[in-house]
Amino acid sequence: MESDNLPLNKKNSAILLIHCPDKKGLVAAISRFLSRNNGNILEIDQHVDKYKKVFFMRVEWDLDGFLIPDSDIGREFTEQIAKPFDMNRQLYFSREKPRMAVFVSRYGHCLHDILARYDSDEWHVEIPLIISNHPDMKEVAGRYGIDYYQFQVTGKNKKEVEAEQIKLLETYQIDVTVLARYMQILSDDFVSRYPGRIINIHHSFLPAFPGARPYHSAFERGVKVIGATSHYVTADLDEGPIIEQDVIHVNHRHDVEDLVRKGRDLEKVVLARAIWHHLQRHTLVYENRTIVF
Amino acid sequence: MESDNLPLNKKNSAILLIHCPDKKGLVAAISRFLSRNNGNILEIDQHVDKYKKVFFMRVEWDLDGFLIPDSDIGREFTEQIAKPFDMNRQLYFSREKPRMAVFVSRYGHCLHDILARYDSDEWHVEIPLIISNHPDMKEVAGRYGIDYYQFQVTGKNKKEVEAEQIKLLETYQIDVTVLARYMQILSDDFVSRYPGRIINIHHSFLPAFPGARPYHSAFERGVKVIGATSHYVTADLDEGPIIEQDVIHVNHRHDVEDLVRKGRDLEKVVLARAIWHHLQRHTLVYENRTIVF
Amino acid sequence: MESDNLPLNKKNSAILLIHCPDKKGLVAAISRFLSRNNGNILEIDQHVDKYKKVFFMRVEWDLDGFLIPDSDIGREFTEQIAKPFDMNRQLYFSREKPRMAVFVSRYGHCLHDILARYDSDEWHVEIPLIISNHPDMKEVAGRYGIDYYQFQVTGKNKKEVEAEQIKLLETYQIDVTVLARYMQILSDDFVSRYPGRIINIHHSFLPAFPGARPYHSAFERGVKVIGATSHYVTADLDEGPIIEQDVIHVNHRHDVEDLVRKGRDLEKVVLARAIWHHLQRHTLVYENRTIVF
Amino acid sequence: MESDNLPLNKKNSAILLIHCPDKKGLVAAISRFLSRNNGNILEIDQHVDKYKKVFFMRVEWDLDGFLIPDSDIGREFTEQIAKPFDMNRQLYFSREKPRMAVFVSRYGHCLHDILARYDSDEWHVEIPLIISNHPDMKEVAGRYGIDYYQFQVTGKNKKEVEAEQIKLLETYQIDVTVLARYMQILSDDFVSRYPGRIINIHHSFLPAFPGARPYHSAFERGVKVIGATSHYVTADLDEGPIIEQDVIHVNHRHDVEDLVRKGRDLEKVVLARAIWHHLQRHTLVYENRTIVF
Repeated sequence: MESDNLPLNKKNSAILLIHCPDKKGLVAAISRFLSRNNGNILEIDQHVDKYKKVFFMRVEWDLDGFLIPDSDIGREFTEQIAKPFDMNRQLYFSREKPRMAVFVSRYGHCLHDILARYDSDEWHVEIPLIISNHPDMKEVAGRYGIDYYQFQVTGKNKKEVEAEQIKLLETYQIDVTVLARYMQILSDDFVSRYPGRIINIHHSFLPAFPGARPYHSAFERGVKVIGATSHYVTADLDEGPIIEQDVIHVNHRHDVEDLVRKGRDLEKVVLARAIWHHLQRHTLVYENRTIVF
Repeated sequence: MESDNLPLNKKNSAILLIHCPDKKGLVAAISRFLSRNNGNILEIDQHVDKYKKVFFMRVEWDLDGFLIPDSDIGREFTEQIAKPFDMNRQLYFSREKPRMAVFVSRYGHCLHDILARYDSDEWHVEIPLIISNHPDMKEVAGRYGIDYYQFQVTGKNKKEVEAEQIKLLETYQIDVTVLARYMQILSDDFVSRYPGRIINIHHSFLPAFPGARPYHSAFERGVKVIGATSHYVTADLDEGPIIEQDVIHVNHRHDVEDLVRKGRDLEKVVLARAIWHHLQRHTLVYENRTIVF
Repeated sequence: MESDNLPLNKKNSAILLIHCPDKKGLVAAISRFLSRNNGNILEIDQHVDKYKKVFFMRVEWDLDGFLIPDSDIGREFTEQIAKPFDMNRQLYFSREKPRMAVFVSRYGHCLHDILARYDSDEWHVEIPLIISNHPDMKEVAGRYGIDYYQFQVTGKNKKEVEAEQIKLLETYQIDVTVLARYMQILSDDFVSRYPGRIINIHHSFLPAFPGARPYHSAFERGVKVIGATSHYVTADLDEGPIIEQDVIHVNHRHDVEDLVRKGRDLEKVVLARAIWHHLQRHTLVYENRTIVF
Repeated sequence: MESDNLPLNKKNSAILLIHCPDKKGLVAAISRFLSRNNGNILEIDQHVDKYKKVFFMRVEWDLDGFLIPDSDIGREFTEQIAKPFDMNRQLYFSREKPRMAVFVSRYGHCLHDILARYDSDEWHVEIPLIISNHPDMKEVAGRYGIDYYQFQVTGKNKKEVEAEQIKLLETYQIDVTVLARYMQILSDDFVSRYPGRIINIHHSFLPAFPGARPYHSAFERGVKVIGATSHYVTADLDEGPIIEQDVIHVNHRHDVEDLVRKGRDLEKVVLARAIWHHLQRHTLVYENRTIVF
């Protein structure tokens, strides 16, 4: 066993994310399935929601020497374990490199931060596509050789624009979409196609200050901390399952411009942490909560 | 000059808290008034609300060698400076020991923390009075020799109870009242008697989760931070000017009981910091914001 | 399964803390031992030190319905699991209430904080004994009805004093000793009797500013954060395995008295968190590191 | 008056940074000098080191309508105020755009972060020059159109290399140099040319873990927080006056690679905050401490 903290590409491992009704013997059954097939567990983490009696687990094991061929693991696990325990399971292989699209509007700080991490191979990810409703970030995209599509969104053409965007996500075989301060609201239709696969950054500590202009609202209320929240996008705006939050202290000297400036650093790092957890397959959404193993 | 960070009783100083319409020459006029009268400024701090064009200042100076007798300072300052500049001013002397009442219900952690600080002379304060709607903390009050009054509050007798409480605050010559997890809502009548003189601790990062059971709501929403807020009490519940806020990180493993337990430590320290600032005369309320110098 | 975050007394559970050379099949073997005997795992947490190839685990299970009688669990586990895997194991039962002694000198803030938590049943612990080299805290001990022994420690009588203190720890059947700002250095002899059973709070973020007067050193160095560190005491002063650390921001305005005052709040909460983890059996010391599950 | 929090280029102001022996009447004298000349104070901040009896001040005022021409302000202030009070003073104008050089080695995260802020005009600064002992960041510099000079530093040629670097700093008229994870130690000769004008980021919370490989040392010591420190560079390695520090929590699960990864985000933001304060003329070095107004 060793830590799962390396970017996944540096390992040859498989990851199971599981949830099911809680029951005795779950850990034993799963760990036995792996050990019987000569799987060395790299990381195992479990949680039980005691109110809802639901069991959650993330287990990662070394594929070297594992007796079941990769192509059969899913089927074997489903038959031997998932079905008997009425389990919902996702299976990932560390060698698979997720493909990520970034949606951005005019503020580039989150995009810059994402691309710098991409450039330095901090994450195990491919970023082939940037989509925007503005031209501002086109040059930045160009510097990194990433395709950039700009859509003028109006009240009328939203449906058509989203149809084209969905086609792009398909063409580019996108696994996960990041809204890096994308100031357009996506339709329910769009969102519901990608459950647990669209990550947003909102510039407040939700549920405080949802909606537009949260820094202005924070200033008005005279708060002594401001925050940022990264969450999976659902049909309910700013109500999706939270992945990561953080705050910083402010005081009466900070005007709205200061909050905006200081908040940018928070947004960048909160979004980056959320993306990291998603890419490392640490996250498991259940109803409106995110388990982050 | 030296730092104002000592408890005020360790200095022989005067403090002016000021606000007025912003104008050129304010700092010069005030600092000249002091220097002309041989006042050594210990601490001077100013702020301008650029949106509302209001000037705020806290200035503290050494009374040793100051040429104006203490009893005349207020009048002299008002005539020479406050009136010409249309100023609102409060004057305090460090030798005055504020008298504080604590209202508490059944949770004793904030009260315990306050009394331990009181016992060790951390604050420049007198605590002669504890008021509760429960008997639970009577023994604790007794340990510190503080008078304890218990009132059974019902829907019907609220007015009479508050009348008696107000009489107690008068009898004990209370300057500031702290609601240390007091679970009764005070009437507008009560609150409006003591503007900027009642400090509450609310167990969430307001404006998120106002009202009852914020830890339950925080758990339901799946937040990744929980917080506490200390604010001056106004007629609008949980809407008063914020003095201090802080948060701690939580995760999916923490159930409601954990949030309650972890939150207690936050409540204690956030309330204590707010009380410290109030007692040190660092705070100045303007509309719904607290300047904390 | 449910969370282990409740104070242990609210559960009827057993806890195993384990470390051994890392090997395939460890999780399977342990979880199978429990499930075969009808044990419902409440919490399971593991870690592998990849550099040293050591496996660590904390597992807690419900004793209700467990097929092995309590008195045989240790022996059965040792024979079936611990021996074959060359394991070091500690077994605890949640119903056992640890007995804690507190050593204190003249600063009472940590003691006050501990006693307030004791008074409100926050922890599953008995505190029958306070030992000091000063009389200052005697009255506080009296308020809580705890026996207080004062020893005048000089260069000459240290050995005799420690002998008496050891006798007291035996008489009062103390399981864990907390040095709550105890300003005497314990001898190697004393310390080596209680490995992993003496918890200290040091008022700096170790390894910065070991030894005496860390706040003065922090001020001299002009640091922008100050910290506190709780660690198990070993023969090497301020070098023991760290359980918990935290910091707060300071700036040029804060003089030494401010650092001392602000530091106190940090010391209290860092020590309290360390004690909580120890009492909940979350901690496992290996060489000079503390695993805090 | 209004907040000084805007990047300086958005204002037409002058800034004085002052220190001198503490004395009565300093604030009055300085504020009167400004008000007599029709100067509107935008921000005034003072501090007294009570141990050393030294007075520090930063005052910023609006140049619109100020009666003394810019070119005479320095001379007038020196004659009327600085000389009589034995003052050390620095005068800056907000319209002056500081010119910054960045030294970098192979780790690009701090450089990327600096350039993204530069690109988005977050700071009032010109960055015409990047110097490195490696070729790795050449492409990044090229993307932003910044000149990049690479020097192979060996034991022997250090003196010659530094001579060339100094010539570059002169040619490019550099005001401030940032060591953005530059892994070469600069000679005393080099450093002493630029007092208070070279900013470094060290990847630990100094004074803990100075020198090389602090994350490895932090891991070895088993700390529960890791940190980063930005400081002005002096001849004593890692001993210069600290501008900014921050930490994040870590636990036993984090191996050295994790500390490195998590530390990067800390280094970026701590360095960026230090640069911001320097560029806003918030910093004043006195002996081994940095006043950050």
